[in-house]
Amino acid sequence: MSRFFSEKYASLTPYTPGEQPQDQQYVKLNTNESPFPPSETAMRAALAALRPLQLYSDPDCRIIREKLAKRYGVAPDEVLVTNGSDEALNFCFMAFCDAKHGAAFPIISYGFYPVFAQVNGVPYEEIPLKPDFSVDVDDYCGIGKTVFLANPNAPTGMALSPAEIEKLLRANPDNVVVIDEAYVDFGGESCIPLVHKYENLLVVQTFSKSRSLAGGRLGYAIGNRALIRDLDSLRYSTNPYNVNSVTLAIGAAVLDDEAQTQANCAVIMENRAYTVGALRALGFEVLDSRANFVFARTPAVDGGALYQKLKARGVLVRHFTKPEIAQFNRITIGTRAQMDALLDAIRAILEDSK
Amino acid sequence: MSRFFSEKYASLTPYTPGEQPQDQQYVKLNTNESPFPPSETAMRAALAALRPLQLYSDPDCRIIREKLAKRYGVAPDEVLVTNGSDEALNFCFMAFCDAKHGAAFPIISYGFYPVFAQVNGVPYEEIPLKPDFSVDVDDYCGIGKTVFLANPNAPTGMALSPAEIEKLLRANPDNVVVIDEAYVDFGGESCIPLVHKYENLLVVQTFSKSRSLAGGRLGYAIGNRALIRDLDSLRYSTNPYNVNSVTLAIGAAVLDDEAQTQANCAVIMENRAYTVGALRALGFEVLDSRANFVFARTPAVDGGALYQKLKARGVLVRHFTKPEIAQFNRITIGTRAQMDALLDAIRAILEDSK
Repeated sequence: MSRFFSEKYASLTPYTPGEQPQDQQYVKLNTNESPFPPSETAMRAALAALRPLQLYSDPDCRIIREKLAKRYGVAPDEVLVTNGSDEALNFCFMAFCDAKHGAAFPIISYGFYPVFAQVNGVPYEEIPLKPDFSVDVDDYCGIGKTVFLANPNAPTGMALSPAEIEKLLRANPDNVVVIDEAYVDFGGESCIPLVHKYENLLVVQTFSKSRSLAGGRLGYAIGNRALIRDLDSLRYSTNPYNVNSVTLAIGAAVLDDEAQTQANCAVIMENRAYTVGALRALGFEVLDSRANFVFARTPAVDGGALYQKLKARGVLVRHFTKPEIAQFNRITIGTRAQMDALLDAIRAILEDSK
Repeated sequence: MSRFFSEKYASLTPYTPGEQPQDQQYVKLNTNESPFPPSETAMRAALAALRPLQLYSDPDCRIIREKLAKRYGVAPDEVLVTNGSDEALNFCFMAFCDAKHGAAFPIISYGFYPVFAQVNGVPYEEIPLKPDFSVDVDDYCGIGKTVFLANPNAPTGMALSPAEIEKLLRANPDNVVVIDEAYVDFGGESCIPLVHKYENLLVVQTFSKSRSLAGGRLGYAIGNRALIRDLDSLRYSTNPYNVNSVTLAIGAAVLDDEAQTQANCAVIMENRAYTVGALRALGFEVLDSRANFVFARTPAVDGGALYQKLKARGVLVRHFTKPEIAQFNRITIGTRAQMDALLDAIRAILEDSK
């Protein structure tokens, strides 16, 4: 760090995103992207947005707020639109936590949560999972902290039911509970229907997974309007034109075609079942995933070694070094051909290690 | 605010962007956008980036960093790429200021500076301009604070010379000096050539004005690599995928065609001279602008009234209510036809108010 950097960041360790090789030579199953490109209709909408790009984008993101509101049965002022859902999550840490009001989240979850806490000077508690890698909501009841739960959780893929989350919401009436539903469209159950019942609930979602727009950067939060107003005042105090015009246009077109989104999700869930079956047949333990990835380990090959061997064979998956999960790899569910490439590589690696 | 909002934001007043009417019925001269669309080449580059939009954008923004580095004679790791220059400025307030280390900027300048200070809990000093509306660098020498200067300044359009800024850099060796050059391409002189000479200099620029990409959201900071590393660690701790793939592609194509950018700037400067001449002939006082806007007042019509009357005639300009400048309006320089529409409207308003 330079001698000018504020000492409040002295121990800050930035987030490490998954590898994003720019040459695209891998079967890329490491960052939970969709294998499907945006639809032709969506691309035509984007094209139309290119011409007036010399003008600022709409800071109100009205078109997206209105379409999301309609889609989810809420009002437009109950929707915050962000430059990817990471931005929404960071705003939640800024808004609802501070030096005196900490955050709580599972120790095994989205690796960005502790970074958001650190960069915002927020004390945080990381809570262990149960031995079966599930989240025990009882651990968070009455905790007196802002709770962040990815549901389905990452990298396990395991989901809580809305009933369990309701229990948590009722037990923490004076603390915001942020449910990060980045992966909910692949078989999870959303808490958005609960936002009018619980004023302390915020649901964060993204266009990066089920809606094939990871490169477009579009996320959102849905909650009661007082919470959304808080978040929006931070957006207007840091970067009001946070979403660009092309992404607003393509996102709107994607929302006009939810059937396509659902069809893509159905294919991913089918390919997930296929992959889980094949991995289990090969001796892997695979956690019960409701996400577009699976988390799997085998006694036959060390987790880190498997990651390296797959990479050497041109298949990129994600490995985490935390001891509790170092034997696992997180594998994005792609097309059937991509999954077959993965399975072929795994079979060859298992053969080699006999 | 909700009862959950952190008390640290109790007195936060978000930034108010200029009006962005979504129906485009105005001659829009209020937010300093370019009247020229991106080039056909740039749009073709954007189109090519739409297809793989299901994949994340490059968090290193390598293509833009490399091209900017080449353009400005610096190294790629001396460039930070951001989602508009507002994001770069916010990172500067986060990185180089804190509760103990304040900020200083002119009281008449980009209205976002005090908001950035407030949202980051940074004490700040707003320093008056000289009676001729210019910045006196002596006011900032040895000030013991991080200095933010828009150069050319907004909304005056008036510029400091690099020699004046060097004086400031030498007089503040232990404080970062951020030079916000959003408007420099319209006749100002950039301080980028000084970044290797002064380790405390950061220059912030944008693609929103001279490069016709306001709606694409692309900004950057250039400085020595230790400063850039600090800012990048904040970027990686809040939103690593901050710039979307389409904008990276279109921005790279725009940088490949600097001749087009320069040609557009030349037209704007020509239209500015034309507009200044015409306004002065109509009895206006017009400050000496090196930006793509002019700041003008007339004793014949109150500033706020002129703004309203122009709006009623379909011409949108920007009026600020601060008492020192309430008699002025800031008028973006557009095409000759747009400027003629403005001048016709002004002539009619002056005639009416006789």
